[in-house]
Amino acid sequence: MESKHIRRFEKLVGRENVYSDKAHKLAYSYDATRERFEPDAVIFPRDENDISEILKYCNEHKIVIVPRGAGSGFTGGALPSKGGIILAFEKHMNKILEIDTKNLVAVVQPGVVNRDLQKAVEEIGLFYPPDPASQDYSTIGGNVNENAGGMRAAKYGITKDFVLAMRAVLPNGEVIRAGKKTIKDVAGYNTAGILIASEGTLAVTTEITLRLIAKPKLSETVMGTFKSVNDAMNAVYKTMASGITPVAMEFLDNLTIRAVEEKFSKGLPIDAGAILISDIDGDVKEQLDYQLKALEKIFNENSCQNFKIAKDKQEVDDIWFARRNASPALSVYGDKKLNEDITVPRAELPKLLSEIAKISQKYNLKIPCFGHTGDGNVHTNVMVKHNSPAEVEIGHKAIEDVFKLAVELGGTLSGEHGIGIAKAPFMYLAFSDAEMALFKSIKKAFDPNNILNPFKMGL
Amino acid sequence: MESKHIRRFEKLVGRENVYSDKAHKLAYSYDATRERFEPDAVIFPRDENDISEILKYCNEHKIVIVPRGAGSGFTGGALPSKGGIILAFEKHMNKILEIDTKNLVAVVQPGVVNRDLQKAVEEIGLFYPPDPASQDYSTIGGNVNENAGGMRAAKYGITKDFVLAMRAVLPNGEVIRAGKKTIKDVAGYNTAGILIASEGTLAVTTEITLRLIAKPKLSETVMGTFKSVNDAMNAVYKTMASGITPVAMEFLDNLTIRAVEEKFSKGLPIDAGAILISDIDGDVKEQLDYQLKALEKIFNENSCQNFKIAKDKQEVDDIWFARRNASPALSVYGDKKLNEDITVPRAELPKLLSEIAKISQKYNLKIPCFGHTGDGNVHTNVMVKHNSPAEVEIGHKAIEDVFKLAVELGGTLSGEHGIGIAKAPFMYLAFSDAEMALFKSIKKAFDPNNILNPFKMGL
Repeated sequence: MESKHIRRFEKLVGRENVYSDKAHKLAYSYDATRERFEPDAVIFPRDENDISEILKYCNEHKIVIVPRGAGSGFTGGALPSKGGIILAFEKHMNKILEIDTKNLVAVVQPGVVNRDLQKAVEEIGLFYPPDPASQDYSTIGGNVNENAGGMRAAKYGITKDFVLAMRAVLPNGEVIRAGKKTIKDVAGYNTAGILIASEGTLAVTTEITLRLIAKPKLSETVMGTFKSVNDAMNAVYKTMASGITPVAMEFLDNLTIRAVEEKFSKGLPIDAGAILISDIDGDVKEQLDYQLKALEKIFNENSCQNFKIAKDKQEVDDIWFARRNASPALSVYGDKKLNEDITVPRAELPKLLSEIAKISQKYNLKIPCFGHTGDGNVHTNVMVKHNSPAEVEIGHKAIEDVFKLAVELGGTLSGEHGIGIAKAPFMYLAFSDAEMALFKSIKKAFDPNNILNPFKMGL
Repeated sequence: MESKHIRRFEKLVGRENVYSDKAHKLAYSYDATRERFEPDAVIFPRDENDISEILKYCNEHKIVIVPRGAGSGFTGGALPSKGGIILAFEKHMNKILEIDTKNLVAVVQPGVVNRDLQKAVEEIGLFYPPDPASQDYSTIGGNVNENAGGMRAAKYGITKDFVLAMRAVLPNGEVIRAGKKTIKDVAGYNTAGILIASEGTLAVTTEITLRLIAKPKLSETVMGTFKSVNDAMNAVYKTMASGITPVAMEFLDNLTIRAVEEKFSKGLPIDAGAILISDIDGDVKEQLDYQLKALEKIFNENSCQNFKIAKDKQEVDDIWFARRNASPALSVYGDKKLNEDITVPRAELPKLLSEIAKISQKYNLKIPCFGHTGDGNVHTNVMVKHNSPAEVEIGHKAIEDVFKLAVELGGTLSGEHGIGIAKAPFMYLAFSDAEMALFKSIKKAFDPNNILNPFKMGL
């Protein structure tokens, strides 16, 4: 990058907020994909006005800008795959601006860590449900731009269901507001609706207004052990169709159970085809009893071999330990996992899992699965050896089969990770030429010079 | 319209589906605004392919197309204010295509009447919550394009919260799908998110996939009488912030109560400052008891004078009669009402109502208010005499004050009716030049020739 640009940025936001040294370039070159692309510079904007000035200058000089949260994404959405400037929010724009207990609303800057918001609102009896697995470090700005999900989505929905309003800066430097601090707003186009999940390609988010709810007073955790994954998947969709709505309905398949047990020795049933882990909540004991009874009935009707209700906090933690450590445990099967987050209509889960078993056989690769079955979202992990390019290539073929399968079953390439660069080659499976052309028109409407996180999503 | 166009349309969709006679032009010239604009022709497409062919032709010849549901909108969204073709769905595209009980999803054509869908799903124990006051005649296509609300939005949300996916035809004739039959989908831009509430200006909706829920087994209805509207508004926002979430939390102010009583003699408390009507639901008796107790406590802490729980179906119907007949009853105050649907953050309701009283005094016009206070949405009705142009003009000034007030309080011009042509002159109050320019860019990205419902929303 020409030094005159760097000097200009230093003038705009202060020398202490602009870095183009090797250390910063390296530190901001990666995300959870393990791919690496170095930016030309890293800028820490102090406020919305800084962002406006930076974008105006970059738009004029056609300099690429990539907004970045915590860099915890799985699809490269925050990677500067064609260089450019990283805009990072963790230094200055990381504040909870307001928690409005009268309207049950929080107003935050994009750099606020999800867990910090959760803690702050729970301290006063409120609740922000979206809890991506990255919640300890991922930021609300990143959550919004990828439309993050989480364990509690089965009952409460995902990030988009909690965004009431946003402020954002367009590539031309203009500041816009989208939505209001109201539950309903149908004036003008639903700009917030299209900014959410846009992976930072349309505008730079500078402020987010989130809906909160009151924290339910009671919760229970259960675990069901099933001989076959098919029985477990039937139990999932029948539960979700029954009228009770568990907060979470997570599953681990046999390979995942074995991996967790091998790594952590927690006494899990290693011969089980699958386990289901479910949380329920509410304010009234009888309401929880009702849900527990319904869950037990449906689980047992689908050949559940062991329906266990956690008796205390320790048992709750033990049950959730298995789920929370599923992802790291899979390293027992290989040092590289190609992990995807396909999502299908819930009643297709039995078919999905049986067909994934066939893909595993076809390519002779282990594909352990776990995830958010309550909303039809399965994390499929194709395990390969990093130092075997041949095996990695076969793994990618298996992944393509998995994507084709998901789309055939009426599902999507991504339930919560987004497309970024990792899934861009597979967009053709899910979208027609007309749909891709429309995406490009939308992109152009916001960003005619294509300076904002270009080439993501296959655009 | 040139007869060659009419002949072409007849060839495309059949002579029996194209009308340009006076009777049809009149029948499709109005909506609930009572404004009248005659179209050049009315076409009843048989299917998506017809729509694609019609749009392709119209795009080529720059002929305006206005999609229309039941014509029950309050803002002129379906009025052919600049002529053109009305596309009407009630003749052919009015079918429920699928009710998927395993995935809790319904797939419908745009012409399905809201109430028909509600009935069909309730017969099998399922539930489609959005219930605009027009539910007996308004269509799902119209509901989606205006993002309709209703009484049950306080707990369940509005139309957009139930749309999983759509099929639509772009002005160039291309068919697109937006979303999937899945709870989560973050692949590509959230096109459905921007189509919802777009008032038929971006694409013609041809199919809608809706999320359903299981129908709660139990419900209760309560009515609270308050001496002052201020007390009632405090009770509303404190209830909504308390952790219990009523299905509905509706209010009638003193003028509305008096109007209903004058017209229907139902024994309402005509000296009350306001009444609140609330429904709660659930599957377990204790859960309802808990909510009733909490409601009663909060109401009484805010000077509720009479907290009444309906004892039977008859009492439920009697309580709801007052609310459902609030709108027609207002005719006792004048033969023309300028009715708006401003929405504010709930904690601003006390301020909103006290300021509206001042606007009423300022212009010496009655402004009865009622509505969906559970989500901060107040129907403000400025009453004027139709045959007094001077009074109508004063009424419009009062409305402008009401809009300014709503925006000052962090609210919106419209919670559920949309903008159409009726509120287009007030868009400047809520949106900056940059925001309006962005709306225009979005419109252009979908509809470069501006053939689809042009000039709505101030675009």
